[in-house]
Amino acid sequence: MAPRKLKIAISGLGRMGARHAINFHTRTPRCDVVAAFTPDAKEAAWAAQNLEGVTVYDDYDAMLRHQGLEAVVVATVTTAHAEQAIKAIEAGKHVMCEKPLSTSIEVSQSVVDAADKRPDLKVLCGFSRRFDASYRDAYERMKTGGIGKPSVFRSQTCDKLDPSGFFVEYARFSGGIFVDCNIHDIDLALWYFGQDCKVKSIVAMGITAVEPDLRKYNDVDNGVGVVEFWDGRIAYFYSSRMMAAGQHDMSEIIGTAGKIVVNANPQSNLVELHEPAGIRREIPGHYYGRFEQAFVTEANEFVAACLDDTELPFKVSGAVQAVKIGCALQESLNSGKKIFFDESGRRIEKANL
Amino acid sequence: MAPRKLKIAISGLGRMGARHAINFHTRTPRCDVVAAFTPDAKEAAWAAQNLEGVTVYDDYDAMLRHQGLEAVVVATVTTAHAEQAIKAIEAGKHVMCEKPLSTSIEVSQSVVDAADKRPDLKVLCGFSRRFDASYRDAYERMKTGGIGKPSVFRSQTCDKLDPSGFFVEYARFSGGIFVDCNIHDIDLALWYFGQDCKVKSIVAMGITAVEPDLRKYNDVDNGVGVVEFWDGRIAYFYSSRMMAAGQHDMSEIIGTAGKIVVNANPQSNLVELHEPAGIRREIPGHYYGRFEQAFVTEANEFVAACLDDTELPFKVSGAVQAVKIGCALQESLNSGKKIFFDESGRRIEKANL
Amino acid sequence: MAPRKLKIAISGLGRMGARHAINFHTRTPRCDVVAAFTPDAKEAAWAAQNLEGVTVYDDYDAMLRHQGLEAVVVATVTTAHAEQAIKAIEAGKHVMCEKPLSTSIEVSQSVVDAADKRPDLKVLCGFSRRFDASYRDAYERMKTGGIGKPSVFRSQTCDKLDPSGFFVEYARFSGGIFVDCNIHDIDLALWYFGQDCKVKSIVAMGITAVEPDLRKYNDVDNGVGVVEFWDGRIAYFYSSRMMAAGQHDMSEIIGTAGKIVVNANPQSNLVELHEPAGIRREIPGHYYGRFEQAFVTEANEFVAACLDDTELPFKVSGAVQAVKIGCALQESLNSGKKIFFDESGRRIEKANL
Amino acid sequence: MAPRKLKIAISGLGRMGARHAINFHTRTPRCDVVAAFTPDAKEAAWAAQNLEGVTVYDDYDAMLRHQGLEAVVVATVTTAHAEQAIKAIEAGKHVMCEKPLSTSIEVSQSVVDAADKRPDLKVLCGFSRRFDASYRDAYERMKTGGIGKPSVFRSQTCDKLDPSGFFVEYARFSGGIFVDCNIHDIDLALWYFGQDCKVKSIVAMGITAVEPDLRKYNDVDNGVGVVEFWDGRIAYFYSSRMMAAGQHDMSEIIGTAGKIVVNANPQSNLVELHEPAGIRREIPGHYYGRFEQAFVTEANEFVAACLDDTELPFKVSGAVQAVKIGCALQESLNSGKKIFFDESGRRIEKANL
Repeated sequence: MAPRKLKIAISGLGRMGARHAINFHTRTPRCDVVAAFTPDAKEAAWAAQNLEGVTVYDDYDAMLRHQGLEAVVVATVTTAHAEQAIKAIEAGKHVMCEKPLSTSIEVSQSVVDAADKRPDLKVLCGFSRRFDASYRDAYERMKTGGIGKPSVFRSQTCDKLDPSGFFVEYARFSGGIFVDCNIHDIDLALWYFGQDCKVKSIVAMGITAVEPDLRKYNDVDNGVGVVEFWDGRIAYFYSSRMMAAGQHDMSEIIGTAGKIVVNANPQSNLVELHEPAGIRREIPGHYYGRFEQAFVTEANEFVAACLDDTELPFKVSGAVQAVKIGCALQESLNSGKKIFFDESGRRIEKANL
Repeated sequence: MAPRKLKIAISGLGRMGARHAINFHTRTPRCDVVAAFTPDAKEAAWAAQNLEGVTVYDDYDAMLRHQGLEAVVVATVTTAHAEQAIKAIEAGKHVMCEKPLSTSIEVSQSVVDAADKRPDLKVLCGFSRRFDASYRDAYERMKTGGIGKPSVFRSQTCDKLDPSGFFVEYARFSGGIFVDCNIHDIDLALWYFGQDCKVKSIVAMGITAVEPDLRKYNDVDNGVGVVEFWDGRIAYFYSSRMMAAGQHDMSEIIGTAGKIVVNANPQSNLVELHEPAGIRREIPGHYYGRFEQAFVTEANEFVAACLDDTELPFKVSGAVQAVKIGCALQESLNSGKKIFFDESGRRIEKANL
Repeated sequence: MAPRKLKIAISGLGRMGARHAINFHTRTPRCDVVAAFTPDAKEAAWAAQNLEGVTVYDDYDAMLRHQGLEAVVVATVTTAHAEQAIKAIEAGKHVMCEKPLSTSIEVSQSVVDAADKRPDLKVLCGFSRRFDASYRDAYERMKTGGIGKPSVFRSQTCDKLDPSGFFVEYARFSGGIFVDCNIHDIDLALWYFGQDCKVKSIVAMGITAVEPDLRKYNDVDNGVGVVEFWDGRIAYFYSSRMMAAGQHDMSEIIGTAGKIVVNANPQSNLVELHEPAGIRREIPGHYYGRFEQAFVTEANEFVAACLDDTELPFKVSGAVQAVKIGCALQESLNSGKKIFFDESGRRIEKANL
Repeated sequence: MAPRKLKIAISGLGRMGARHAINFHTRTPRCDVVAAFTPDAKEAAWAAQNLEGVTVYDDYDAMLRHQGLEAVVVATVTTAHAEQAIKAIEAGKHVMCEKPLSTSIEVSQSVVDAADKRPDLKVLCGFSRRFDASYRDAYERMKTGGIGKPSVFRSQTCDKLDPSGFFVEYARFSGGIFVDCNIHDIDLALWYFGQDCKVKSIVAMGITAVEPDLRKYNDVDNGVGVVEFWDGRIAYFYSSRMMAAGQHDMSEIIGTAGKIVVNANPQSNLVELHEPAGIRREIPGHYYGRFEQAFVTEANEFVAACLDDTELPFKVSGAVQAVKIGCALQESLNSGKKIFFDESGRRIEKANL
């Protein structure tokens, strides 16, 4: 008897949706992609070419009713993430939803609430770095105590400059650079410091060095944020849209007895070029060049958890916490204010602070 | 209609055979592994657990007769490579054969002869580095002229020391360190310098630094070889069985206007550890840790060539040339002689040279 | 006729003073160290052994009156820097004063005021990194425009953990981690962004991960600070007393078209060790291991400026600006407040900001 | 009383001679450069500008008679090294002679013979790498046993391509690439393997990739050589005149339990550039950019040994051994022959080997 395969649908076939579709279709042996949803004719045409045997719907609800469907990958625009995820959960499907659940804390929470009502379903928020071999290795090494108590976390998400300025219009819905880019770094901080660590204060600053128009969407192209936790730890973040060389996402977990660094020295592959100008290496031009293998792992582990009813590596509720911090950073950036919280997580106002 | 998939069998389920089996089974979407051959009960038990739906034979010829079989992956012990490959070719199957075809030049040639009689079949000798993204990138950069004329090639295959000394007994059949390890480096030299470059002279030296017993099989644990070509190029090779830190395979293509280096700085992943003793990174413990992705690419490209009747990236005849050079290096190592060839490839004897 | 040599005195023969003494004595050919001041008997004994021909005084004023003395290097405890520097200036001596001039802005300014009255004298505040070949190279590359407009500056000063906890008592007078460590990074920011850039806001946070006792001196062992400038630039800093591997001071100048990084990968020398645990390199245990050559350059350039009446590479007034920023970071750390300035440099209070 | 200083003369003020002169004059506190010899008017004019207080002679013998002279640095053309060194020794002067003593083994030996007659004098052959901090660190680590038994030594001396082709004419007297470049690597092999290790066989090959005219002086622009020792060790060398990126001299000491690498990743300084083409660093354009500090150390240690009558770090006799190996490599390159020695060091001829 052939092994059972998970019947899965992909919602959204844009840039990232198409990648998910291909990964689940050809690099995730334990599933069958049976359906996809896209309202876009070009994307549908692409699917006809590349997703042999997959039924493409232009109606999300119709897709949900696809015969035998068991799981949905939500990879549409951010603004649709939550609604689609909730609908899928309510229809009894496992859900893997691209990050962020929403740029709104409340809407993000509503996905978690829906998931909480269906503990039989697997609901995953796609923080791809949690599936990256290097980040996992760092976590294991930290856990075994080699660096003492992890105390300071530095992390950055820095995109290659897109001279088309696409990211200006993108900023209209992205939630801002801290919610869009640093959300990953925030999630890593929560992973490494513990999902329960409580924020004490938050501050952020930013500039528009290459795209002043970002200001109209309350955004910046370079942001620095600092988060202080009640248990005496600090995380600080940098995000940028203007790297010349390519994508450079990196992190440092600094402990009382050592430090673990992930990707201090980015590289596309193992080639170095000795030229008259010196020694040169190229680096990935995009986050997918850095994290492709993590996405494949994510797909396979999500499918395995659904089929085998095993635990996902992390809870969807953490995604809300990450969005909360991201939104607070974004607010601090725009208000100029430092933001304070008490130990119960409630916002507090300090006179003249 | 579901896309057609290549029906493939794996011969040999030892260390590398099992990896091939898994790769073709789960990471090569366009094929179905339908059969496998192993005379070993443990390996057969492993297959029952891990290769669902695959018929396991303890008779190679029986496997070849498996209904609908189209292609065979030969991954048994080196001494069986050629015979199995030839049988498969004669049975009208595409063949992917692990390197080397044989440690004997004549036997290697017999595989090529068999392949030549069946131009309709795809016959591939598994030089995995030809499928590695970094080596391919290096090749493309070289081809576009960035380094001028490639003139010197340095390449090494260095294994992590196996304190069990397993490699002593392994040397009985391996053909020696130049045939077993540097065969990859030799093949790379032929790739980068051109498959038609003609050897002018060959010399090799070696030592047994950790395993004196290797001498009984005419082998060494560290070897250095130099190959001079008639068109004014040089390749030099190093192989070792005693690396402390792990596998370190690396290459330099040195041109008149630049140099391309592959894997000068090996690493397991993107993690660096800052510890009281300094900054440390780990490196792969084995060649598979370095080349896993290349093997997956190899599997997928072999299958695609069979299904689409497209050309393989390189000819099987080159494998004979590589074995010739490897055997000459091994001979020079053992005789102490430098070996000379005329431009037609014939061995020449020089008085007192 | 022998070339004229500058007659110079060293005040303070503690850790750094002794290094300056040796550097001026043996590695600065155009000067003669003629005198030294130390109130400490052990240091005086050391001088008798190591500073042949140098008169050692236990009275600073007496040293100032040494026959023919032309210049003084002030390398005593920070609390004495300003007074000694001013006395020397008033006595008509050139002065090279260790950083910081003082941990007080006003006192620092008093040194600048004294210097302003004697434009014939060379007065240098010893920001050693300004003399470091790599930082200078970075500056030249930045100036020639390769990275577009420098917009974000990240810089850290991270000491190897001293398990003796010496730095706790040291914190009593150091001015705090931002004034003691990050003062260098602040000075670099002013160098790279332009000495005239105006601070808009400042915020800092910190923790005591290894030495809770630091709190009694209003200090921390890990600090993160962010400085926003009115011309749309940001600098952010990290300082730490708990690095396991050694001293790691590094900086990034991030421009709209590229980035220059100094010392991302610290190293003691050019040796790499391949060991069973991987590949390892050591890094300097102390700032002097990193910047020794910069101190020698500093000594030689100071002497040359005095002898040839040429300009020093930077003005002493910048040192006050650096202390101002350092003190504001330290204040923000301790108050929890974000601090704001108007474009004229005046502190402003924002309701609830 | 002022400390006694060694009175020293510099013979030859060409490229390297001028550097030695400056180093001894301004960076070697315990000596006074009192005299210099050059037959060249331009060099003499340079000395008048840059070597204040130094008497410049156009007659070597006259220079040797300079009042009070105690030591001579021989940095003239290679062909004059030996004669000048011997004259100086016979005149009772300490001698530091640039490498090689001579390109002839016999002439080199004559220097050693002269030195042997005057055990009261310090005679140093200037193998600058012996004074390099990284090579010394490597030696100490090797000695303490971290890598087990050093068994394979790989070392290269690779010059940046000089497009003027100067090195063609230079080859007329240089002794060839193995004697001129790899002499350093050979000397390192003797240092690391032990000065007494006995050569068993030698072979070399080479090409003229950029300068075919080198053949008229029996030289090449890229050479590979292998040296086998009687105690079961191997050293292999590469030298090149055509590096695009700059000088790349590096070495590996490979032991049975580990490996020490010196300068695998060359760099001019600690700056890395992130540019649209990737991440780049520059490397030294010339050996002096790599080894400047080693030359300064050499000067200071030579002077100290003369003044304090302490032992030099290595014996001058080793220089003959290095030249012997270099000449044999050069001979093998040109004859095509592999060369054999018995355990007593005598050349042996093997029929058809």
